[in-house]
Amino acid sequence: MYDLKELHEECGVFGIANHKDAAQICYYGLHSLQHRGQEAAGILVSNQHKLTVHKGEGLVTEVFNASQIQALSGDMAIGHVRYSTAGGGGIANVQPFLFRTMQGDLGICHNGNIVNANLLKYELEIQGSIFSSSSDTEVIGHLIKRQNGRMIERICQALQRLDGAFALLIMLEDRLYAVRDKYGLRPLSIGQLPNGGYVFASETCALDIVGAKFLRDIEPGEIVRVKDGKLLSMLYTDEPIQDKICAMEYIYFSRPDSDLDGINVHTTRKLAGKQLYQESHVDADIVIGVPDSSISAAIGYSEAAGIPYEMGLIKNKYVGRTFIQPTQELRSQGVRMKLSAVSSIVNNKRVIMIDDSIVRGTTSKRIVKLLKDAGAKEVHVRIASPAIKYPCFYGVDTSTQSELISHKMDVHELCQYIGADSLYFISEEGIKKSIHFKKEHTCDLCMACFNGHYVTSLYENEVERD
Amino acid sequence: MYDLKELHEECGVFGIANHKDAAQICYYGLHSLQHRGQEAAGILVSNQHKLTVHKGEGLVTEVFNASQIQALSGDMAIGHVRYSTAGGGGIANVQPFLFRTMQGDLGICHNGNIVNANLLKYELEIQGSIFSSSSDTEVIGHLIKRQNGRMIERICQALQRLDGAFALLIMLEDRLYAVRDKYGLRPLSIGQLPNGGYVFASETCALDIVGAKFLRDIEPGEIVRVKDGKLLSMLYTDEPIQDKICAMEYIYFSRPDSDLDGINVHTTRKLAGKQLYQESHVDADIVIGVPDSSISAAIGYSEAAGIPYEMGLIKNKYVGRTFIQPTQELRSQGVRMKLSAVSSIVNNKRVIMIDDSIVRGTTSKRIVKLLKDAGAKEVHVRIASPAIKYPCFYGVDTSTQSELISHKMDVHELCQYIGADSLYFISEEGIKKSIHFKKEHTCDLCMACFNGHYVTSLYENEVERD
Amino acid sequence: MYDLKELHEECGVFGIANHKDAAQICYYGLHSLQHRGQEAAGILVSNQHKLTVHKGEGLVTEVFNASQIQALSGDMAIGHVRYSTAGGGGIANVQPFLFRTMQGDLGICHNGNIVNANLLKYELEIQGSIFSSSSDTEVIGHLIKRQNGRMIERICQALQRLDGAFALLIMLEDRLYAVRDKYGLRPLSIGQLPNGGYVFASETCALDIVGAKFLRDIEPGEIVRVKDGKLLSMLYTDEPIQDKICAMEYIYFSRPDSDLDGINVHTTRKLAGKQLYQESHVDADIVIGVPDSSISAAIGYSEAAGIPYEMGLIKNKYVGRTFIQPTQELRSQGVRMKLSAVSSIVNNKRVIMIDDSIVRGTTSKRIVKLLKDAGAKEVHVRIASPAIKYPCFYGVDTSTQSELISHKMDVHELCQYIGADSLYFISEEGIKKSIHFKKEHTCDLCMACFNGHYVTSLYENEVERD
Amino acid sequence: MYDLKELHEECGVFGIANHKDAAQICYYGLHSLQHRGQEAAGILVSNQHKLTVHKGEGLVTEVFNASQIQALSGDMAIGHVRYSTAGGGGIANVQPFLFRTMQGDLGICHNGNIVNANLLKYELEIQGSIFSSSSDTEVIGHLIKRQNGRMIERICQALQRLDGAFALLIMLEDRLYAVRDKYGLRPLSIGQLPNGGYVFASETCALDIVGAKFLRDIEPGEIVRVKDGKLLSMLYTDEPIQDKICAMEYIYFSRPDSDLDGINVHTTRKLAGKQLYQESHVDADIVIGVPDSSISAAIGYSEAAGIPYEMGLIKNKYVGRTFIQPTQELRSQGVRMKLSAVSSIVNNKRVIMIDDSIVRGTTSKRIVKLLKDAGAKEVHVRIASPAIKYPCFYGVDTSTQSELISHKMDVHELCQYIGADSLYFISEEGIKKSIHFKKEHTCDLCMACFNGHYVTSLYENEVERD
Repeated sequence: MYDLKELHEECGVFGIANHKDAAQICYYGLHSLQHRGQEAAGILVSNQHKLTVHKGEGLVTEVFNASQIQALSGDMAIGHVRYSTAGGGGIANVQPFLFRTMQGDLGICHNGNIVNANLLKYELEIQGSIFSSSSDTEVIGHLIKRQNGRMIERICQALQRLDGAFALLIMLEDRLYAVRDKYGLRPLSIGQLPNGGYVFASETCALDIVGAKFLRDIEPGEIVRVKDGKLLSMLYTDEPIQDKICAMEYIYFSRPDSDLDGINVHTTRKLAGKQLYQESHVDADIVIGVPDSSISAAIGYSEAAGIPYEMGLIKNKYVGRTFIQPTQELRSQGVRMKLSAVSSIVNNKRVIMIDDSIVRGTTSKRIVKLLKDAGAKEVHVRIASPAIKYPCFYGVDTSTQSELISHKMDVHELCQYIGADSLYFISEEGIKKSIHFKKEHTCDLCMACFNGHYVTSLYENEVERD
Repeated sequence: MYDLKELHEECGVFGIANHKDAAQICYYGLHSLQHRGQEAAGILVSNQHKLTVHKGEGLVTEVFNASQIQALSGDMAIGHVRYSTAGGGGIANVQPFLFRTMQGDLGICHNGNIVNANLLKYELEIQGSIFSSSSDTEVIGHLIKRQNGRMIERICQALQRLDGAFALLIMLEDRLYAVRDKYGLRPLSIGQLPNGGYVFASETCALDIVGAKFLRDIEPGEIVRVKDGKLLSMLYTDEPIQDKICAMEYIYFSRPDSDLDGINVHTTRKLAGKQLYQESHVDADIVIGVPDSSISAAIGYSEAAGIPYEMGLIKNKYVGRTFIQPTQELRSQGVRMKLSAVSSIVNNKRVIMIDDSIVRGTTSKRIVKLLKDAGAKEVHVRIASPAIKYPCFYGVDTSTQSELISHKMDVHELCQYIGADSLYFISEEGIKKSIHFKKEHTCDLCMACFNGHYVTSLYENEVERD
Repeated sequence: MYDLKELHEECGVFGIANHKDAAQICYYGLHSLQHRGQEAAGILVSNQHKLTVHKGEGLVTEVFNASQIQALSGDMAIGHVRYSTAGGGGIANVQPFLFRTMQGDLGICHNGNIVNANLLKYELEIQGSIFSSSSDTEVIGHLIKRQNGRMIERICQALQRLDGAFALLIMLEDRLYAVRDKYGLRPLSIGQLPNGGYVFASETCALDIVGAKFLRDIEPGEIVRVKDGKLLSMLYTDEPIQDKICAMEYIYFSRPDSDLDGINVHTTRKLAGKQLYQESHVDADIVIGVPDSSISAAIGYSEAAGIPYEMGLIKNKYVGRTFIQPTQELRSQGVRMKLSAVSSIVNNKRVIMIDDSIVRGTTSKRIVKLLKDAGAKEVHVRIASPAIKYPCFYGVDTSTQSELISHKMDVHELCQYIGADSLYFISEEGIKKSIHFKKEHTCDLCMACFNGHYVTSLYENEVERD
Repeated sequence: MYDLKELHEECGVFGIANHKDAAQICYYGLHSLQHRGQEAAGILVSNQHKLTVHKGEGLVTEVFNASQIQALSGDMAIGHVRYSTAGGGGIANVQPFLFRTMQGDLGICHNGNIVNANLLKYELEIQGSIFSSSSDTEVIGHLIKRQNGRMIERICQALQRLDGAFALLIMLEDRLYAVRDKYGLRPLSIGQLPNGGYVFASETCALDIVGAKFLRDIEPGEIVRVKDGKLLSMLYTDEPIQDKICAMEYIYFSRPDSDLDGINVHTTRKLAGKQLYQESHVDADIVIGVPDSSISAAIGYSEAAGIPYEMGLIKNKYVGRTFIQPTQELRSQGVRMKLSAVSSIVNNKRVIMIDDSIVRGTTSKRIVKLLKDAGAKEVHVRIASPAIKYPCFYGVDTSTQSELISHKMDVHELCQYIGADSLYFISEEGIKKSIHFKKEHTCDLCMACFNGHYVTSLYENEVERD
């Protein structure tokens, strides 16, 4: 995904209770969530008496070495991987956050975005709070600190003040809380280890990797506590609960082997490919997908259409910050590090190219050109998500609205702009059908980035309507 | 491929002449050949007066940083990536080799294995040679050094003494030679840059990445020289030429987007999948492939059979030597870093699992168990290569013959051993058909590891026949 | 000093205003203050609009590379080196601290120790503050934040709440403040660059290294502001000012080429050596010093006594955390990495050994044994500081009182314990005379660690009186 | 020494036999010889069956980490630290050299320079040798390889062909040889460990550090073998033996705590200082030394003259290749990383400045200017070596003769050039007296760099006589 794509999830979280190698298990869990954030990582561990944290900028394998993991001794841990947004770099914003208070230490990991964070920050600063970071997560710690009562009451009172998207892990010396916002915008699952310990993860792929059995998803509006090896669950709010998980989690962010709300991601993508075929078929010689996230949809299309799926585009796996980037001069000479078209596959062919989304349009334009330069006779672009016309305020780093090409162009104009022979976006209805293919599924989806129907107030943020 | 597989190619080579950023182009070329060797890398550069080398253990991105690439100034370069065999570790064996002689410097990169290296070494030591490494490549330098005449004559005389597999790049201050053994066992291609410069690479994927146009493959027995920007070609031997490229290059080693002898690797794999269907079909619910190298064959099978291809196995991309390995205890608890089965896909399904090869059998056994543990009702294993019964002496690190499970068990026994419901290896005829699908193709394949028909004498090496 | 010594200064600070390469100048300044703290380092830079920080654990040369320094663009910077106390490790405690507030950013570097930090923390938490670190420095930011008025008023009000030792640098987007506590316990100097810019440093050696001219020391109780290139100075408190700089700064911590309050450190050490001779001479063949900090005193003694100074002990300069420590087994076999005695110098000699201090006594005991093992006939230990009987609460990491050997033993017992032939500590009067050798000097010294006369209240801390 | 000085020793060697942690002991030994070469390091270990090497560019602590030392298992080791000469960089030249032959492996470490290396190389290439490096050490391996008979005979025959300076360690699977050239130009000592094992080191400081007892120096022309825990000694040549150890070893290269031929280095330097006083006294206020190597001489002068020794110059200890160098612009603004003058010490003083040598004169000129800029009224330079007028061919990297300032200027001109108030070089007689202060000492010194009396033929090298 690295560097190629124009959409970025901001985080993944992983937690574990009741395992003597908590930090190491957490390391593996975070590693399998690396696709959700590659700029920074951290692990906070508790030995029941004291919290210890190690965090840094880079991939999980860069931030931690064996001796650092060993130094994080304890039987409970929470960890975080992060995509660093433009404005918010720096070690101060890297999670987990650790707060030292007279009543004990408090650690927090957060995936999502608090829409009313600035309002809360303003209010808290008036009351004397002072912030060390520009992160909205720090606000949560301050809110908890300022409540009264038992810890779970204080946390619930704080959570009731938050609006927006959050999958949270909160850790004290002797207990761990897992929370999901009342819309269920970001995913969070519970699993159980062979030894009885509990793990929490943004995606189920992280459960599999550590040998944990999937128990269930945390429900929207639910807070779960593990203490003394036991699970306690409650709703933290009286407000109406919705089930509006982010559609882009299925379409783009999550790993294909993860299940979200019990639905396998790869399967939904294949169905979206099939659906695209039904909505918009065109005759062609081969079907190709833009790697990696569009491969499943391309295979689905190919199966439905009976047109062979071929490997017409190859992504080069270069990793990490040590890679020496080509100069502009070399790039202009054709040095291409990210994606290349396979000429012997696409030459002289009519190509159906499946991609998961179009954000600014520049990448699509470049890929179509790659294919045509490699000899493709026709390039028909099929997108496995509806057109993105609205920014996300729930933890996805889409561009500003004015940069969203579908905000500015209709499909016809965009088709010309990217140089394709035809272009089609899956319908909202179509994507819904692909995700909710099982009859029993009645939960809903957040599709605000397609249709502007935001599940929360936008507070000071504004968007332009059509 | 890293760590998961039991077969290892030993090398990839890349060369470039007539480009002011030769070392940097070479870096990108080697990077795209990284799958051919991940233990060490090196680049040797010439500024027409003097050769300078940098090499080290690790991935290309680990061995080189920007300032080191910059320090390698010159307009000609050869480079190498290497899989370090058990006995032959250490910096002394890392290529390119550089020899300092009174007549000037000489650099060599080698992919393959010289079968008569020990005999030649013995003879050379008698004559007073002394070796700094345990590599067979060093022998080549000594042989060249001991010949007389013009440099090209000396090289050709030396090459005539070599038996075995070699794709060689040899560089002097002002010229670069590219050579392929007379059987054509290892691939080597020529490409041309937009600026007219020439590049040489083990696989065409490295040409694409640097913006070079594929010109042609070096022929078996051919030596090509670039000097003053011009190509000169000749045969270095009067002995009969064969065209016996290694079948495993198609089946397993090469990148799917590479073309070998004009044949696209991904395409041959898809055809092998199709062929497997025709030779051995069994009814099932889904087809899955062992990532990454068996995906193409699985898709081919799926298309031919009309059974959906699904992502039932996921490989975790952990990279580099900094990854903290799970302890045996954690592994026994189910922490799995390399491969996991996707339960929501395979549960309760009859699965056709396509893999590219079976070497020692332990990996296959483990994967079948993963699938069954994840709920697969049946697992039918289909292998896209014939059974490997003989060791390779031409540059592939297969195990010793006694470790080759197909040397010890027939298909029936092996099926039981790995716990599959059925097991089938593609026929030799079938793999040939998949690779030589174009009518005009008349070249042959080395399939010694399947049938023991070695293209060379084995010298002191021995194998047991059935 | 590294690893050898039992006393640790906790910090050094450096600041600069009005230089386009502020971060790089700061890097050199911190590098020359490295002896004051080797566990962590950080630099905070302002480009007049925004503060950016980089910090990490390790030596200055380990924490920063060229591209990180380049990324810290701005014309004002403050930086910090830190000795990490046992309890307070972790990146959260590494300075500079950066606070993000609605009125703008605020950065702080602190050398010293706030004696009433816990009381203030308690009070602040009651008011709703929440802390991210266990550092007393974070308290300062919270105090400033909670005041009203113009920034300088807010800072002065906050400073009035602090008791203890502090040399502070505080930076906002467009201005830099430098402060010294009202007792002048920790040093802080002002220098001026050739281009007119101002620099601030814990020691004058850091001024020299960056080409700055020494202007003057910050006075006890003074706050200095640089804004728009101009200096403004005022006292921040009406309380009585004292001039009680820490005696150990002269005796042990500071670099010999630094001047503190206008007095050269090397010179005071030589005079202390001379004074020791006058107070306690014994006949001997050679004088030696424990490197590095006792060399000056040893030379002073030698000159006064007319007994030759010899290099009888050698410190091995091993650096950084990458050094592989000898195992206990190797150490028991005589592998000695820190200090060795030079047998050809001390064999058969009567030795006067000068050291700067005795804390727990174990090091002295080990050195005396080294010398005797190397053949010294007699070892007369002379200590250039009075006996340390009381813990320091002003920023020096002495052990707890119960670990201070001079708290438990008188000179006679201690002499026996360390195995010396005689032992003498310089008198309090003697050390004062050595430091205040110029007539005009009327300032006083903090000698609380020798005599228990603490300059502040101790709040919740307690010490046992004789 | 790093970067400050204009003379460079090229190597230090360390060997050990009969200790289960041979590589680790070797690591400590090399670490204490780091001042003899800071560009590269290597250790070669034998487990009685096989030799394994690890080497790289950088300091000992940079080249080796704990796991690499652990991987070097065996009970015999030889190691090397190296100053990389301009022409001969690159990993190929880093020692120890390891040769793989049919009769077994052979490892070599070399301190010194073979004067007839090019002649031998020419002869060997005619016979078919081919070299991988530009190092003269590789020649030794080839020579040994080409002899007949028992190994010790082959080595002795090879040694007889060598002319020049060499302290060699040669290791086979089961034995270790230590050799010194017949002039004794480079030092080499034997020590014994508490467990009975033997160690060899360029300087005795490396014996001390590993807990070894000094036994004796290897004699000029001697070869010592350790096998099965026993020492065997013989002369390898019938030619006349001389005892001409390099005078600069005492004056500049060796650590002050080392003994060379039984003479302590620090002591000879102090005596040289005393001698300088006797030969050339001038009235002054203080004596200072250029750190680090001239401190002993300065103290000697001070004691003899009764003028106080002061710390007027401070060297900044920056280490390793990660240090960010100041730009030319910053340097011109007075940023000084290497050496600074202490103004409060030298201001208004008449200074006697002791240095160990003058090579190109630029450093001396710079230091005198530093002192004058810091306020010194007079600067009288006294050099503890005679003027260097001839290049060294025995392993010291002096400049070419034309760069030697004393080849071009007499003392008077040079004094003006460096801007000193007076300048004096110690006499040849004087330096001899300082080194051979004990009556019983009859061995001689190589002082070719002062007087051009080379102990060997110069072969193709030439020097201009006065």
